Amino acid sequence: MELALTMAKTAKGKTNPNPLVGAVIVKDGVIVGTGVHRKAGEPHAEVHAFNMAGEHAKGATLYVTLEPCSHYGKTPPCADLVKNSGVQRVVVATLDPNPKVSGRGVQILREAGIEVEVGLLEKEAQKLNERFFHNMIANRPFVTLKYAMTLDGKIATHSGHSKWISGEESRLQVHQLRNESDAILVGIGTVLKDNPLLTTRLPNQKGKNPVRVVLDSRLQIPLDANVLNDEAKTIIVTTTDANPKKIAELEKKNVTFIYCSKVQNGINLEEMLEQLYKHGITDLIVEGGGEVNASFVRAGLVNKYILYIAPKILGGRNSISPVSGEDVDTMDMASKVEIDSIERIGEDLCIIAYPKPGELHAQY
Amino acid sequence: MELALTMAKTAKGKTNPNPLVGAVIVKDGVIVGTGVHRKAGEPHAEVHAFNMAGEHAKGATLYVTLEPCSHYGKTPPCADLVKNSGVQRVVVATLDPNPKVSGRGVQILREAGIEVEVGLLEKEAQKLNERFFHNMIANRPFVTLKYAMTLDGKIATHSGHSKWISGEESRLQVHQLRNESDAILVGIGTVLKDNPLLTTRLPNQKGKNPVRVVLDSRLQIPLDANVLNDEAKTIIVTTTDANPKKIAELEKKNVTFIYCSKVQNGINLEEMLEQLYKHGITDLIVEGGGEVNASFVRAGLVNKYILYIAPKILGGRNSISPVSGEDVDTMDMASKVEIDSIERIGEDLCIIAYPKPGELHAQY
Repeated sequence: MELALTMAKTAKGKTNPNPLVGAVIVKDGVIVGTGVHRKAGEPHAEVHAFNMAGEHAKGATLYVTLEPCSHYGKTPPCADLVKNSGVQRVVVATLDPNPKVSGRGVQILREAGIEVEVGLLEKEAQKLNERFFHNMIANRPFVTLKYAMTLDGKIATHSGHSKWISGEESRLQVHQLRNESDAILVGIGTVLKDNPLLTTRLPNQKGKNPVRVVLDSRLQIPLDANVLNDEAKTIIVTTTDANPKKIAELEKKNVTFIYCSKVQNGINLEEMLEQLYKHGITDLIVEGGGEVNASFVRAGLVNKYILYIAPKILGGRNSISPVSGEDVDTMDMASKVEIDSIERIGEDLCIIAYPKPGELHAQY
Repeated sequence: MELALTMAKTAKGKTNPNPLVGAVIVKDGVIVGTGVHRKAGEPHAEVHAFNMAGEHAKGATLYVTLEPCSHYGKTPPCADLVKNSGVQRVVVATLDPNPKVSGRGVQILREAGIEVEVGLLEKEAQKLNERFFHNMIANRPFVTLKYAMTLDGKIATHSGHSKWISGEESRLQVHQLRNESDAILVGIGTVLKDNPLLTTRLPNQKGKNPVRVVLDSRLQIPLDANVLNDEAKTIIVTTTDANPKKIAELEKKNVTFIYCSKVQNGINLEEMLEQLYKHGITDLIVEGGGEVNASFVRAGLVNKYILYIAPKILGGRNSISPVSGEDVDTMDMASKVEIDSIERIGEDLCIIAYPKPGELHAQY
């Protein structure tokens, strides 16, 4: 199962909206088949593994990181393939998260007299497909909040200068993350101040650009903003109050619009996420300033935190903080997270954290 | 030498103003003597080791974490003891940092025909006595800046509420640090807002209270402030402009005064450190608010950073930052540090960092 998980990871960023899946077939202690789902539309992991195993599958054990699918999609259901393969036993790391089909693949196999075990390395398998699991359960993109700050919690000087907080290695990792992501979101404040490109720049490699999403309730975006260039798709999230003339001008630049209702501090983010998901966006990196970041945190919409900490003390009464928004009175009103890992990236630290159970505002 | 260093550490906090020293005597591959300097005024590590070794010292090798002393203090010079012990070889981790005696102990031994090696685990030995080394070279206390912040860089809410940012384990560690330190410094702002005791509270153990140092240029301290209670000694750092009547009242409460000149943002901290050192303070924990912390960072007077990061995102436009002070315009004006270690303390992280060479403003 460990091998199956490791293999599954090799397709990271290429299978969206499908999950990462790996499969290994073992007979008499020997691996006779391996497979990985490489890309949406291509065969599932099980298909590759059975193709490789051929006749050796009879009486063997299949290890698969996700419950074999039970429905017709772009490819026929894997549960049927497994049922007819002659394997004696199937070990599944985790059930399909989609409530409509969860458990059905296992049921098909059990009804066919195959011995099925569920739960081996379950946590690892769910983490591997954290984006997919969230999509299936919440019907929204998986939201990663990313920022880089100094050791005293600053993302920029009082004048907005932030080049560079983190080191080269961290910045490269951020472009790698963009390369693996469907979309990246900033607020109009960041566009007006930094005029970023938000594209993927990787050395010696043509990266995949995420869709650029700009939160712009009052449609203040300049027509010559870098995010409107033709290097990547751009979605502007605004309200129905937005100036129709400017909308028309922007539509000429191939901008897509999403209209959301307003809430106290701007745009209804939950509504926006649902609409982005309908546009095929399964995951979103939030690289906002303090106000945008705070609006996601406060709404309980952050699924994962990726934080870079640079070995610097900036100081400055008016330096800029990674998360601002409305003030709260007491410490217990902070959003609690669980630190998953800490890694040294060059001279920086990279901290990965998840909201504590109960802190995530979701329908599940 | 590793054993000698490990033994030396066992006396942590008890030897001030003396360094931590360990000694091991080895003959024919067997340890025949061990010693550690336990407390100022008591015998040095070498004395204990030779007492234990007795006749076995003849022809043996002495491993000692610091160059044997060459001068008469409270005890006679160890170099003479070593010279007369009959050892054949001496391995010293690091030379005495005191420029007046550095190398003289080794010279005495070499002149006596003893083979001497210097530099085994030198870095570790210097780090073990980082406070002492700084004292000897700079004639000032070793300054540790300590703060606890959230993952988004806040030490308190807009209203100053900060109970509790860090978890119980981290707070216990902070009291352990106080227990090992000569003095703890806060600004008058912290006294007025939080009215802290600044004493050492350890479970099942009577801790040693550090001297409480309050930066109070305008002598605003209330006569009933907690830091003025009789649990620990208190030093108020002020200027000669301070109200003589209030000084008299405070002196009745056994407060010691240090008078310093003023600089742009308050008190001349370098002058203060020199005076504190004359008062026998070899190390100082700075637990200031953002302004006091910034004044130490900006003056290049921080020798070590101990930072706790709690797994929380607080947010809040007016939440309080660990280091504030005057604004700087660009990121390259940040003080650079080197991250020495990262440790998980309960749910928190503890990061230890040192100023990058060149960032420390010192006379050496």
